[in-house]
Amino acid sequence: MGKKEKSSFQLKTPKGTKDWQGTDMVIRDGIFSKISEVFKRHGAVTIDTPVFELKEILAGKYGEDSKLIYDLADQGGELCSLRYDLTVPFARWLAMNSSVKHIKRYHIAKVYRRDQPAMTKGRMREFYQCDFDIAGEYDSMIPDAEILRITSEIFESLGWQGKYTIKINHRKILDGIFEVCGVPTDKLRTISSAVDKLDKSPWDEVRREMTEEKGLDPEVADKIGQYVNFKGARDLLTKLTEDTTLYGNASAKKGLDDMATLFDYLEVFGVLPNVSLDMSLARGLDYYTGVIYEVVTEGSAGDSTAKKPAKKDKKPADADEDRSSDPSVGVGSVAAGGRYDELVGMFSGKGQIPCVGISFGVDRIFSITKARMAKETELRPNEVDVYVMVLGSKGGLLKERMEVATLLWDAGIKTEFSWKVKPKAPPQWKAAENGGIPYAVILGDDEVRDGKVTLKKFGLPEGHPEKNGVLINRSDLLAELKKKLRALSEPELEEKVAELTVQDSS
Amino acid sequence: MGKKEKSSFQLKTPKGTKDWQGTDMVIRDGIFSKISEVFKRHGAVTIDTPVFELKEILAGKYGEDSKLIYDLADQGGELCSLRYDLTVPFARWLAMNSSVKHIKRYHIAKVYRRDQPAMTKGRMREFYQCDFDIAGEYDSMIPDAEILRITSEIFESLGWQGKYTIKINHRKILDGIFEVCGVPTDKLRTISSAVDKLDKSPWDEVRREMTEEKGLDPEVADKIGQYVNFKGARDLLTKLTEDTTLYGNASAKKGLDDMATLFDYLEVFGVLPNVSLDMSLARGLDYYTGVIYEVVTEGSAGDSTAKKPAKKDKKPADADEDRSSDPSVGVGSVAAGGRYDELVGMFSGKGQIPCVGISFGVDRIFSITKARMAKETELRPNEVDVYVMVLGSKGGLLKERMEVATLLWDAGIKTEFSWKVKPKAPPQWKAAENGGIPYAVILGDDEVRDGKVTLKKFGLPEGHPEKNGVLINRSDLLAELKKKLRALSEPELEEKVAELTVQDSS
Repeated sequence: MGKKEKSSFQLKTPKGTKDWQGTDMVIRDGIFSKISEVFKRHGAVTIDTPVFELKEILAGKYGEDSKLIYDLADQGGELCSLRYDLTVPFARWLAMNSSVKHIKRYHIAKVYRRDQPAMTKGRMREFYQCDFDIAGEYDSMIPDAEILRITSEIFESLGWQGKYTIKINHRKILDGIFEVCGVPTDKLRTISSAVDKLDKSPWDEVRREMTEEKGLDPEVADKIGQYVNFKGARDLLTKLTEDTTLYGNASAKKGLDDMATLFDYLEVFGVLPNVSLDMSLARGLDYYTGVIYEVVTEGSAGDSTAKKPAKKDKKPADADEDRSSDPSVGVGSVAAGGRYDELVGMFSGKGQIPCVGISFGVDRIFSITKARMAKETELRPNEVDVYVMVLGSKGGLLKERMEVATLLWDAGIKTEFSWKVKPKAPPQWKAAENGGIPYAVILGDDEVRDGKVTLKKFGLPEGHPEKNGVLINRSDLLAELKKKLRALSEPELEEKVAELTVQDSS
Repeated sequence: MGKKEKSSFQLKTPKGTKDWQGTDMVIRDGIFSKISEVFKRHGAVTIDTPVFELKEILAGKYGEDSKLIYDLADQGGELCSLRYDLTVPFARWLAMNSSVKHIKRYHIAKVYRRDQPAMTKGRMREFYQCDFDIAGEYDSMIPDAEILRITSEIFESLGWQGKYTIKINHRKILDGIFEVCGVPTDKLRTISSAVDKLDKSPWDEVRREMTEEKGLDPEVADKIGQYVNFKGARDLLTKLTEDTTLYGNASAKKGLDDMATLFDYLEVFGVLPNVSLDMSLARGLDYYTGVIYEVVTEGSAGDSTAKKPAKKDKKPADADEDRSSDPSVGVGSVAAGGRYDELVGMFSGKGQIPCVGISFGVDRIFSITKARMAKETELRPNEVDVYVMVLGSKGGLLKERMEVATLLWDAGIKTEFSWKVKPKAPPQWKAAENGGIPYAVILGDDEVRDGKVTLKKFGLPEGHPEKNGVLINRSDLLAELKKKLRALSEPELEEKVAELTVQDSS
């Protein structure tokens, strides 16, 4: 590298990428762990695939978007590309592991797209996806229903109660609608793509695209227009089923029957109040073959269309609660997916494995969750429970502090102490305060001489008898701390033990 | 892509990469979570950097090994490379975030090297590293000692008690030795590299490299030879300090004084029994400036040299226990690191931030852990607690099973049921058995009619009164299951509650 380039050296991360740090990392890890917990509750396993795949594995899977794929340089050997999503690597894995006939797998990992970054909208070139997929032959609509139950559990566990809507539709209903309206077979997919834009564009614009750009008969377009504005739940399903023209179409009939079964299952699973059957939902990707869905939240794209049916099941006061200040406006959907029964066959050439899955846009979920929690929650950067301090000793008592820390580490207690031989008091108080650490163990020359320590809980009100800590025997420290820390993390159970102990000793 | 290439399509992962799945994934996640737990116990936070960096960030950091860096294709815009390790991205982050003066951070992530893969030795092109680093000004050797304490906690928590040795040395002691032996200043680093090979090559070969390849005076080489075979602990430290020629050298004196302080701290931390001061340890990378260390385990490279001092602290029977069958032979060191006080300055140009860190070779640790555990442990692929079954009902009771599953999911209990409308008994038993699921909730027409369920624990011995399960009221199911599952996960505390409850009710 010449001198000239060296002087233009830029200290930054590549365009469209970022470092994750501090409390953002704490929030993100919290989201990941809540999501994983739900997946595990439903018996899922995780699979970790390489960050790059053979270039030919990705080829022909993403249509126009293929230009966004990152390639590795040709340094001799195989040509590889960074993964664009987690679905194609999963399909490749299924095709390679042909003995696997059934699997529920989740995968939380980074994917890569050479898109124009839009930081404010949360669109990055390196971002996290979180996929859950069920592969295998099962009875109709049962895994599909469980995916929506999982989706609902995830948003409930994130505290989004009443703030999200799962829009659903079925490729076969859409195809049926297009057929009965008179769309020529070779225009089915392109008309479907046009419909998919209805969450961002008004009908007039979509109609113009259909007729002017894509050459559809205006009369056919108007017929489609009547259907795609339908949104509802059971009522809409009944209405469509009673439409004898539509129900007379084999594809539509299959889709509507599936949907009736799905609604039955969603009702048992308690998910129905969050679901909106939406004829304008089409999903861009070609490979969907059955039910499709997309989750929108207040202020995210498509929310205005989703608002009406959602309102029925919410208290009215809820609806516009924090909309004005919600910075999530325009972040798009927060999760999307559907059934894709034919993708794996593109790799294996032989047997198909039917699949149904969903992908969570965790970076968007992160932005929204962070914005919603910022006001109330104070987050700790780490999880330290105890700060071991020295006060009132000229020598600094380093080894004694190390001994106490060792005692606590050995017991699995998260502990820090100042890495100074003779630390002053203020920086020690500050370190404990900055870390939001709940307890201090204080050593002084007197304490060491008498085999004692002072155990202090931070944040007690002025005048509390234990405000300045309690002097206890060093030999009791571990038991005392364990009791207090358990009470912090598991108040309920601890209460029960305490209550029973009291009864027992009385 | 032409037809010809398409026909040669290979269904595989790129060379040197692999999919992680099944129980391997369970073991690996277990290792990651144990390691993270130790880091958190010491107050560490985590930072997540992009998988690729600007090419110029990596340039000039890895010497000869730079040829192993993966570049991204030039598709317009910035030139980027996949990260080669986690240290350089961390140094880049520190230089970018100049307000951060102190941090303890860990990072578990994949790194990329276009090396010749050697699967049997666990050498891959995409592999995990796990780094822990402490940046900031502190009193001498305190963070260095805590890193070794953390290292020791990690291997203890992995169950490697008595099976690992932390070899340590100090760059300044080495430099002092080289100086007093008469190595010219311009040959210091290259002679250091030669010494670093002593864990794989005998002294004669290293001596030949020094004299014949690197033009060192044979007399000087022989003087070095006397020092670098020294291994020991406090005894060796005393011996070196009493060597007036060596201790008269300013660099060696600094290193030996540091080491004496470190040994004092390691003693308090209880780490000393696992440490071996080893004058042959030199570490390849140029950027180390102080203490350096490397962890070897039974059967890993360099173990023969580490065996002698380690034996002192172990029962003799322990030493060769599972050596012959240990497939970890030749996996090299399992962790390594040291102090690097000048690396961050390479980016910021201005202020230095002193750093000390360690990198764990988690893929190697995985292979060894797996080999050691395989014999005894039976691993479950997932964590499901309850399988909801139907027995003795022609209708299949799908909705009733869904209702029970929903009840359990709502309570956070990991639950599965058959995704068949009318499942037969054998595949249900098999699914529960394959998953190692501990409990079944069994529904039949009789149970449903009477508002009951049968709760069965798997694995009870023949003749046990509850072998076929216990019929309970459905309204008691949740409380009953919660009690049983808590007992599974927290036997101690549960015992206490049970015991107190018994006393209380008596």
